[in-house]
Amino acid sequence: MVTGRSPAVVALGGGHGLSASLSALRLMSDRLTAIVTVADDGGSSGRLRSELGVLPPGDLRMALAALCDDSEWGRTWSALLQHRFTSEGDLDNHAVGNLLIVALWEILDDPVSGLDWVGRLLGARGRVLPMASVPLGIEADARVGDRLTTVVGQSHVAVTPGIEQVRLVPPDPPACPEAVQAIEAADWVVLGPGSWFSSVMPHLLVPELARALHTTRARLCVTLNLEAETGETAGFSAADHLDVLHKHAPELRVDAVVADPSAVEDTDQLARTARRTGARLLLRQVSRGDGTARHDALRLAAAYRDVFDDVLGDVDDRTG
Amino acid sequence: MVTGRSPAVVALGGGHGLSASLSALRLMSDRLTAIVTVADDGGSSGRLRSELGVLPPGDLRMALAALCDDSEWGRTWSALLQHRFTSEGDLDNHAVGNLLIVALWEILDDPVSGLDWVGRLLGARGRVLPMASVPLGIEADARVGDRLTTVVGQSHVAVTPGIEQVRLVPPDPPACPEAVQAIEAADWVVLGPGSWFSSVMPHLLVPELARALHTTRARLCVTLNLEAETGETAGFSAADHLDVLHKHAPELRVDAVVADPSAVEDTDQLARTARRTGARLLLRQVSRGDGTARHDALRLAAAYRDVFDDVLGDVDDRTG
Repeated sequence: MVTGRSPAVVALGGGHGLSASLSALRLMSDRLTAIVTVADDGGSSGRLRSELGVLPPGDLRMALAALCDDSEWGRTWSALLQHRFTSEGDLDNHAVGNLLIVALWEILDDPVSGLDWVGRLLGARGRVLPMASVPLGIEADARVGDRLTTVVGQSHVAVTPGIEQVRLVPPDPPACPEAVQAIEAADWVVLGPGSWFSSVMPHLLVPELARALHTTRARLCVTLNLEAETGETAGFSAADHLDVLHKHAPELRVDAVVADPSAVEDTDQLARTARRTGARLLLRQVSRGDGTARHDALRLAAAYRDVFDDVLGDVDDRTG
Repeated sequence: MVTGRSPAVVALGGGHGLSASLSALRLMSDRLTAIVTVADDGGSSGRLRSELGVLPPGDLRMALAALCDDSEWGRTWSALLQHRFTSEGDLDNHAVGNLLIVALWEILDDPVSGLDWVGRLLGARGRVLPMASVPLGIEADARVGDRLTTVVGQSHVAVTPGIEQVRLVPPDPPACPEAVQAIEAADWVVLGPGSWFSSVMPHLLVPELARALHTTRARLCVTLNLEAETGETAGFSAADHLDVLHKHAPELRVDAVVADPSAVEDTDQLARTARRTGARLLLRQVSRGDGTARHDALRLAAAYRDVFDDVLGDVDDRTG
């Protein structure tokens, strides 16, 4: 990392989880890129995808809103982006930002420049890119009793317990070239938090992104969730999250794991699992501590700074 | 008019006609306000009005686009505003700007500040206001042979020949207060061009706007259309347009009339009619002259400048 410059950081994920990491990272990096899942098939995004044949815009919209400039201008346009219509009619539940992003795609005929224009509108601190240039499907094997069934579609995968393996459809989609470049040029890549199978791991299944993650000089930080999901990772321990990551991307080198003690039932187990992948473990409160399972942007930002600067005074020493 | 400042101008109308006057006026006034009909019940606006219970945004959107700053920024957001979705589904034919305006109304709970925010987005030169604070209906008496029938709805009125009288529903809607203030503070008010019964005259039927037009120190310029409409004013001569205006607002003082000779069949008749209302007539090419019935923004701007400065060298002297 060049002294005096903030680190170049790439955050991978989707949905609320990615918003959490971006809200923290925007406080400590002015070279920030979000690479976002494009496999959503539910809600407003799913309808737009099927009606207009576009990338599902919802996760991209949320990432842009998380990077928004904190001025009256930025807050107003961010509120517009996040606003949803409520009616008995055609527009019900459509997020305005989804419509705006899709319209810019139609006008500019280029997903990346459309997103860059929304970023300019918001005064966004950082750039938001889709992980692939084409809309993706997700399917998964889920265990019900002693047999495996196939679950099709991100919105179904997200709510299905017993997921063991997740796949992309098509299995080898073209990555967004700017996303590959961002990973290659990064100092740190941050994976998670978020819906593990449906938002966090899909990136590892895009061949060009996986290759870039294996060859980049950037180091990788995994941010664990604050509570077990009720759907796809119901019953998963913190260590289980690292295990399935390893199972889906065995060559992936993990350098650091950030976890909140309140979300770790068995610290020893997590420490052993982190050590097995070569990662250092930072166990520290990064939640709001208000009973919700939400990250505190300042605490998480400080945790990332310590991880990136190797100032891990309170790192769990069993991982050393 | 204060020397050295551009005149404060208020343009009344709707649709493509108002876009034409605004495209010209933005070249010669930096104190420009558009007051726009809110009676549309067709297309994207009609659907939004009925689905969400809002003012129909389409004419407001077009006026904003006409005032847009001519920079890459302004052109991009203007193109977004004017973009329409095309699909087999729910979004078909919706103009993106309509959705954006309506969403800002829902967020800000105030039509005027919502429009001001879109104006800021576009770098609009001037302000766009709705003529009334509530959605309006239009109905009209149309003569078919020797009997009168009632035509209901702006979209029906606009395509019905033989219109004799037009009314608002409700008949006494509250005016937008900022619109009343703009008329009171104006140097010039410009009425037309546009669909005469359905876009131009409705303003005269809003009691508070009519009162402001009668009492303001501003002078009034009527801009006639470049060709007879095929619908509501089929068969109307240029003079007939002034006549129905007088019939609907007998107390309205008209100071100037701008007409293109190519759209005036009987110059003497038009001159007589203008003289009867006390107006001077400027007969000059303000069309593009390319066979289309479209105004040339520069020619029309120069005509307005001559009218506003009383430099009417080529005014038809039969009106003097």
